[in-house]
This record gives sequence, C-alpha cells and structure tokens, in this order.
Amino acid sequence: MSTTLAPQLSEEALSSALDDLRAALGSETVLTSEEEVAEFRDPFQFTTWDDYTGSAVVTPQTVEQVQEVVRIANRHQVPLWTHSQGRNNGYGGPAPRVKGSVIVSLRKMNRVLEINEESAYAVIEPGVRWFDLYDAIKAGGHKLMPSIADVGWGSVIGNTLDHGVTYLPQGQDMAAACGMEVVLADGELLRTGMGAMTGNRAWHVYKRALGPMLDQLFMQSSLGIVTKMGYWLQPWPEVYMPLWLRVWNDEDLPRVVDVLRQLRLDGTVRMVPQIVNTVLLSAVYSSRELWWQEEGPIPDEILDKMGRELEIGRWMMRFALYEDEAVADYKFKKIKQAFGSIPGAEVWGEKHSPEEIPELENPVERVQGGVPSMDLNQMTAWYGGEEGGHVGFSPVAPLTGHDAVALRDLLRRMIEAAGLDYMAALIPISARSFIHVTLIIFDTKSEDQARSAYEVATTLVRDCAKQGYGEYRAHLDFMDLAADQYDFNDHAHRRLNERIKDAVDPKGILSPGRHGIWPQAMRDGQPGAS
Amino acid sequence: MSTTLAPQLSEEALSSALDDLRAALGSETVLTSEEEVAEFRDPFQFTTWDDYTGSAVVTPQTVEQVQEVVRIANRHQVPLWTHSQGRNNGYGGPAPRVKGSVIVSLRKMNRVLEINEESAYAVIEPGVRWFDLYDAIKAGGHKLMPSIADVGWGSVIGNTLDHGVTYLPQGQDMAAACGMEVVLADGELLRTGMGAMTGNRAWHVYKRALGPMLDQLFMQSSLGIVTKMGYWLQPWPEVYMPLWLRVWNDEDLPRVVDVLRQLRLDGTVRMVPQIVNTVLLSAVYSSRELWWQEEGPIPDEILDKMGRELEIGRWMMRFALYEDEAVADYKFKKIKQAFGSIPGAEVWGEKHSPEEIPELENPVERVQGGVPSMDLNQMTAWYGGEEGGHVGFSPVAPLTGHDAVALRDLLRRMIEAAGLDYMAALIPISARSFIHVTLIIFDTKSEDQARSAYEVATTLVRDCAKQGYGEYRAHLDFMDLAADQYDFNDHAHRRLNERIKDAVDPKGILSPGRHGIWPQAMRDGQPGAS
Repeated sequence: MSTTLAPQLSEEALSSALDDLRAALGSETVLTSEEEVAEFRDPFQFTTWDDYTGSAVVTPQTVEQVQEVVRIANRHQVPLWTHSQGRNNGYGGPAPRVKGSVIVSLRKMNRVLEINEESAYAVIEPGVRWFDLYDAIKAGGHKLMPSIADVGWGSVIGNTLDHGVTYLPQGQDMAAACGMEVVLADGELLRTGMGAMTGNRAWHVYKRALGPMLDQLFMQSSLGIVTKMGYWLQPWPEVYMPLWLRVWNDEDLPRVVDVLRQLRLDGTVRMVPQIVNTVLLSAVYSSRELWWQEEGPIPDEILDKMGRELEIGRWMMRFALYEDEAVADYKFKKIKQAFGSIPGAEVWGEKHSPEEIPELENPVERVQGGVPSMDLNQMTAWYGGEEGGHVGFSPVAPLTGHDAVALRDLLRRMIEAAGLDYMAALIPISARSFIHVTLIIFDTKSEDQARSAYEVATTLVRDCAKQGYGEYRAHLDFMDLAADQYDFNDHAHRRLNERIKDAVDPKGILSPGRHGIWPQAMRDGQPGAS
Repeated sequence: MSTTLAPQLSEEALSSALDDLRAALGSETVLTSEEEVAEFRDPFQFTTWDDYTGSAVVTPQTVEQVQEVVRIANRHQVPLWTHSQGRNNGYGGPAPRVKGSVIVSLRKMNRVLEINEESAYAVIEPGVRWFDLYDAIKAGGHKLMPSIADVGWGSVIGNTLDHGVTYLPQGQDMAAACGMEVVLADGELLRTGMGAMTGNRAWHVYKRALGPMLDQLFMQSSLGIVTKMGYWLQPWPEVYMPLWLRVWNDEDLPRVVDVLRQLRLDGTVRMVPQIVNTVLLSAVYSSRELWWQEEGPIPDEILDKMGRELEIGRWMMRFALYEDEAVADYKFKKIKQAFGSIPGAEVWGEKHSPEEIPELENPVERVQGGVPSMDLNQMTAWYGGEEGGHVGFSPVAPLTGHDAVALRDLLRRMIEAAGLDYMAALIPISARSFIHVTLIIFDTKSEDQARSAYEVATTLVRDCAKQGYGEYRAHLDFMDLAADQYDFNDHAHRRLNERIKDAVDPKGILSPGRHGIWPQAMRDGQPGAS
C-alpha cells in the first residue's frame, strides 16, 4: 500500500474509504500497490519527483459504480481525480493535481453504446479510445468518419472534456460533442441538453437545453464525472484529399496564416490544419546531432539547411479537403493560387476514395481521414538522451499573421534563452483563432534538463499573458499559474467558478485544483490558489 | 405610479428601490406611469390580463448603471427582468415572468463597439438591433455580412441569449457568439472566455476559457446581465444565391427533410433554411376567408388548391448558397438533382453579387443575405379579427423525415382539434436537428380565442413531451410547464440549475422564473416551480 496522503486527509480516512470502495465495487477494482499506482504517474516526471502521485486507483465499470465512488469519497472526504484514458502526457497524463488523490480511471468503461447512421453520431463511454470508436464504425459497416486526435490511444470523451484538438470538419471549433450524462459530486445522475427530458429524441442532435446549457460546465472542470457523451461523425465524402503546403523562409509564416484565414472564413478549408516548424518536423524525421553538435539552440542558417535537405522547409502545413470531386478540384486550384502569392510556396496532395484512407502511408494523412494510429506518438530522443519527454505549452491567439509572428518571436526567444530548441505547431482551431502548441522537449532521465523545461514553461505563462495570450489548457505543474493570469476584475471568472464549485461539490472531492479551481477548504492551503 | 407589486415585495420596498434608482441613474431613466409601463407588456396578451405586467421600467445606459441597478435590487430584494430589445412577441416580448418585476430595458445601450474586419466579428452592446449592426458594417465600408433574424428590430444579443435563430452560415448551430461581458447578480463584472484575462487578444475569436466556459450559463438564464458580446460575421462571398424549393404534396415533407439532411451533412448547404407549410405562407400572401368560410380548420383539398393557386405548394423551403461562382453553379445542379427525386419538386434561384442584396425584392432573400427589414413582421389578421397575435410553440426534433412527420401529425391533429389552423415552419438549425416553430395565431381582441390559443399551447407541451420532443424556448405563459417536462432523474437538470442560481444570486433578484428556474425563496410559492 502506498503511503502517499492527500493534505487534510488522515491515513485512517483513506483506509476506510478504500475498504468501502472494495466492498462496493469488488477488491479487484481498487489498486493500491506502489507498482500499480506508479503506472498512473505523469510519465514524463523525473523518477524521484512525486508531486503528482496518487494514493490508489479505482476502476469503475458502470455508472452505478461511479456514483458509489463519489458517495464514498464524500463520506470520507477523499479527493478524487478522474481521467478517461489519461493519455495526454504532455499535460500530465493520468496524474492528479493533488498528491495522494484517489485516481478514478474510467478506462474500463469502454462501450460504444450507439452509432446512429442516419444522423451521423455515436454515443460512447469515457474509456472509448479513438481506436475503439473507429473499430466500432468499421464493424457496423457505417460510411462515417470520426474527427480524431493525432494519437489513437486517447479517449474521445477525455480529449473532448479537455478541449482537445481533432482535425476533421466536425472538429472545427471543438464542436463535435452533443449531449452528456454526468455523475455529480453528490452521486446524482444528470443528463444535459435535451437529455434532461426522459426519452427525448434530440439528446445527441441538438446542443442546447431549455434554460442554460450545462455541458460546458463539465469541460476542463471539477464539477462532475461524464459517463456518456454524443459525438458527431461525418459521412464519407466523395473524395478525401490530404494536402501539404511548404514554405522555405521563416518570414513566410505571417503570409501563410493570413491566406489560410481567408480560406477558412470563406469555407474553402473546413477542417483543422497544423502549421509546423522545421525543428518539430525534424524531430520526427531526423535527430538533432546530425545537424548541430554545439551548445545552445540551432541557428537560422542551419534550420534553413535542414529545411532544404529534409525537404520540410521552414514551415509546413498539413490540411485536407473532404468534398465532391468537382469541388475538391476547384478548391485545390484555388488554394494553390492563394498560396502562390508566397514566393517558393508549394501545395500538393492527391485525391483518394474514403476506402483507401486506411492504406495511406503517411500517418498524418490517415489521421486527417479519421483513421487512428500510434505512429504520431514517437517522442524522439531529440537531445540524444534515452527517453524523450515533453511539456505542452499552448497559448491561444487570433489567427492573424501579426499574432503568429508575435507569438513565434516571443516563444522562440525565451525557449532559446533557456538553451532549448523552439518546436512549434500552430493549430487553427477555427477560422479566427489558433492554438500555438509549443513542445518543450527534454530527456526525462536528466533531472537538470527536466527542471529547466518546467522552469521555462512557467516563465512563458507569465510573459505570454503580458502580451495578451493565455493558455487553452495547462500542464499540472503550472495550472495554477496559468489560471492566475486570467485576472480581469480581481479574477472574477475564477471566483464565479469557485462559487459554483462550492455549491455543487461542497466537500471538494472532485478533481480539486483542476485548471486552478479549488474548493473552499483548499483555497488557502494550495500554492497558487486564490 | 403603477401599483402592480411582485409577490413578497412591499410597496415601501419597491418605492425605496425606485427612489434609489432615480438617485443613482437620474429620474428620466425610471419609468413608472401606467402608460409607460404598459408599453412593456406582452403585446399579444388580452387587454385585461395582467399576469405579466411590470411595476416600473429602468433604462440604464452604461455598464456601471447596470451594476448600480443590480446592487439596488439586492438591497431592496426587488425582482428584475431584463430584456435587450424585448421584441420577440410570440414568446412574451419584453414582459416579465413575475408580475410586478422592475423591468430592466437595455434598449439605450446600443453602441457597436468594434467591427474587426480582419477576423470578421463585431463587439456590441445589448440594445444593438439587427438594423444597427447592419448599418455600422455598411458605414464602415466592411465587406462583411451578419447572420440575422427575420425581423430587424430585434437585439443581436437578446436573440442570441434566447437561443434565437438566424439564417446565414455563421448562424448554424447558433454559434455566432464569442466572448461576453456580464454583470452578475451581486454587481460584479465578469468577462467570459479569454476575456477573463485583462488585455487578452483572443476574447472574441476563441470560444473557450481555461477551465469551464461560462458563456452558456448566461443564455436563457437568470444568472447575469450581458453587457457586451462578440458576434462573428462572414466575409462577402463571390456570389449569394437565394434558393426556393416547392413541393405539391403534404406527403413530400419527409423526403424533403431527408434529402436536406444529406445536403447539410455533406456541407452542400451551409446555412439555416426554413421549411414552411401552405397555411403559414398563405397568411403572408392572402387571407383565410378567401379560401374557407366554414367552421373549423381548412381541409386538405382546400390546402392543395391554395398551394396550387397561390403557387406556394404544400411545403416550400427557403435557403441559400454563399460561394465562389463555380461552386455555387455546381451545388445548384447537385441540389436540383437531389430534390429531383421528389415528383413535381422544383428548385429555383438566381445568383447575385453581395452589392445587390439590399435591392432584392423579396425580404426573405434580403434576410438570408444579412440585410434586415421589418417586412417579415406582418402578423396578418388571418382569422379576420382586427389585430393578429401569436404564441410561438417550438419543439426540437432530429432532422429526419420520420420525426418531421411525427411532429407534423401530432401538432396538426391537436391544433385542428382546438379549431385552429396548423401553421408551421421547420427550421433545421444544424445538419442534425430542427426546431418546429408552430405559430398559434389568434385575434388579440377576442378573449375567447386568445384563451383557447394559450390552452392549446399548454396541451401541446405535454403531448409533445410524451412523444420525446421538448421546447427549445418557451412563452412566459407555459415556461414552467415546458421546464417541468425535463424530468430525467427527478428534474436533476433543473435542480442543478437551481443550486447554481442560489449560489450566484442568493436573493433571487435576476429574472426569477426564467425558463422554469426559480430562486430558493420563490420555489414553493410559484405555480409550476419545483
């Protein structure tokens, strides 16, 4: 049995809670050995760090069991931390914000409950991974595509609840979710939207409720445990056309962004692209020491050389069309022409029938076509260490050339000042904004490098906020700091969130500290809490 | 001074509150004469009915004044009822749910604060009407179109907060709003989303927050008064092509709906159409006594005749394309072919440049092109009375042929059983759902007819719920009943809303009873409240 204890929790209380959990759910659902619990650490944390280690893991399989877990946690005032798959390692993976929390892992609730061909949606449980959803669609013979994330092991619900990015048209503006079932902090079962009416036919097709829509309250939140969710799919298009854009100069970035915005606003591009820089692409195709053996970040002339020799340019954009063939042909010509205003820019791609997508060689082209894999998970040992880890740092900005340049310059300067390379993927989540995903890569076996990665992330949070850019989600280690930056009117936004938290979860058992929202009892005790 | 008093409110408390309001805002901002207050009644209520009459009207002009109003209301425990323009008369117009409320009219807060050409959005105050937004865009020379409602006098913010329908691509799924400023019940000022960070550049371009997004809490709600909002616009397309579909048989409806769903799901149609029946169209072009002089509803053979002679068929759909010319040509052909599977169905329309839209003769074609007018407000005297009124009854359903038929048959049977004609507009708000707007029309000068219109609406609420269809918004008169139907797990959805209401507005001063959510102190006292 692990001895990690949450603050304000006695060993006796934890022990009684675990006994109750075993009695209610069966002892095989409660994991307490150090070895078992260690599997739910932040996988990129340095071995001896234990800031985010749970005390036990419970793995309910039914909604009723989730309700039981919550009731028991209330009885003993034990903090819980829920994940669906907990696979987003750049933000902390399955690890809890509060050390010693009981981790609620929903990995075993993995049923695809419905696939509605007519209205093109699925209803799923939280343990359902991109792989599972894809397989269920295929097994049912449905000509439907899910908008998926880069790595197939993640949970559809988990990704959605974290405002995670997916790439198909349905993923634009993160708008694929519709209608939830939620276990509240007191164990009550709630259905959102039209699901609030027993037997309502529009639960997973209409996003609002009568009165306020509550779904968003359960995203990036600590107010409930989502046990079911509708997820919109899209019918197979006549043709799928994955596209690539390559530009040779770093100065081309603003023009790429401005042209793309026009193409997004007028409906030509209807999905979520990625604009990726040389270093990040090189990390996939190559390794650092082949290009630069000296101390400090790679200089521009070497980056230019890498771009030329690896044929990845200084920036590449991955994107795709999903259209009738005639429209795809027209749009491809239009897109080529639009980016043709950038000297040296190239756009290419090929049309495919939806049936061909699983056979495409490039995993990016499969992912944009709704076919999941693990191929994009390879976290390379960029710095030559044994095991690569990364911290994700992801501010949001308007999708304009000048904002892209401002963020690029700020982030590059600061990351390079810390002696690291600037690895960037700009993800235009809608026609009007992008998330600047910055991968701060380090060798997880080097405590010094790990510490400096965490430190630079912390500095970035503050400096980006000063320029008007805030995180769309935050790693466990700087969640509080990121939330602190949302300071309008003495943190009015967080204060309202806290007030709702206290009303809905008075004992503060659900995921305390998630995205900076602490329950009453912990507000003074926690670092960074208001 | 009107003597209408809210329950649980003494004349002295109201009088002191009004004195404080006059002192804080100036006496010209507080209207109390019976005549002035009467202008804010439900305009379709029978003259002697006073269930929804306010005690006074206050008209703040600044955010600070709104904060003052809220603080004064708290001090004296006076219920407020806020509207922006209060023009949606089919749902009660500007009238409060609780008789004797002080009406907060935001009509004077009518500034367009920003039009951002680059990212295609506007920032507006709640009093800004569709007319005002359109005029500001035009005055600035911006080649941008707003997604607007049918009648130009409504408030952009008011419509949005009520989940109101607009018709351009940005209006799909009611998704044009981004980033709010809100005065909370205690007078605190909140900014949602990225606006929670002072000086954040993405407030009106990125819809989420770090942590739960709170915007939806302020829609159809009683938790705050929205004082600013971002509203996404769309750049002028190369061509605008308003389209019409006409079918001759009532039995064609399911096929129309099923074909449309395919065209919506595959991105061919990217806006919000309306599918309208013969009676509703006749009410615009003709009058009832020309066709049917007998008692009871118009029989099918007469409806067929009206459809033929007025050339409006049994169902017509209004919709539009916003595309590059080549794509519009392709899509028009595809749409014609798709509906061509319905015998006798016709599709027609003409391409226009955006500059031509204000000159189009048909107001529908202007509205779908973002140009507001009052032309679609003509509520005809269908039943030959002096003044036509209507109650809107609007359940939501999946966008499928069988759901359209089920709702049509249920509603028609019941409305005709009450001796009224079935007037319907099906509005596919997204690719997956539609709102069945039913206009229950009556002569406002006839107390009997008015009463029977309200009565049939009440019956419809219950009977639709039994079939799995719930209201997307509800008229004042059956708000509680409509909310009652959302009964899953002993009204868990409403109970959570109530808990949040009590936490955020402990004195229950903001719009009590709105969409069935009552503050603690009123929960037992009000009819229909839980």
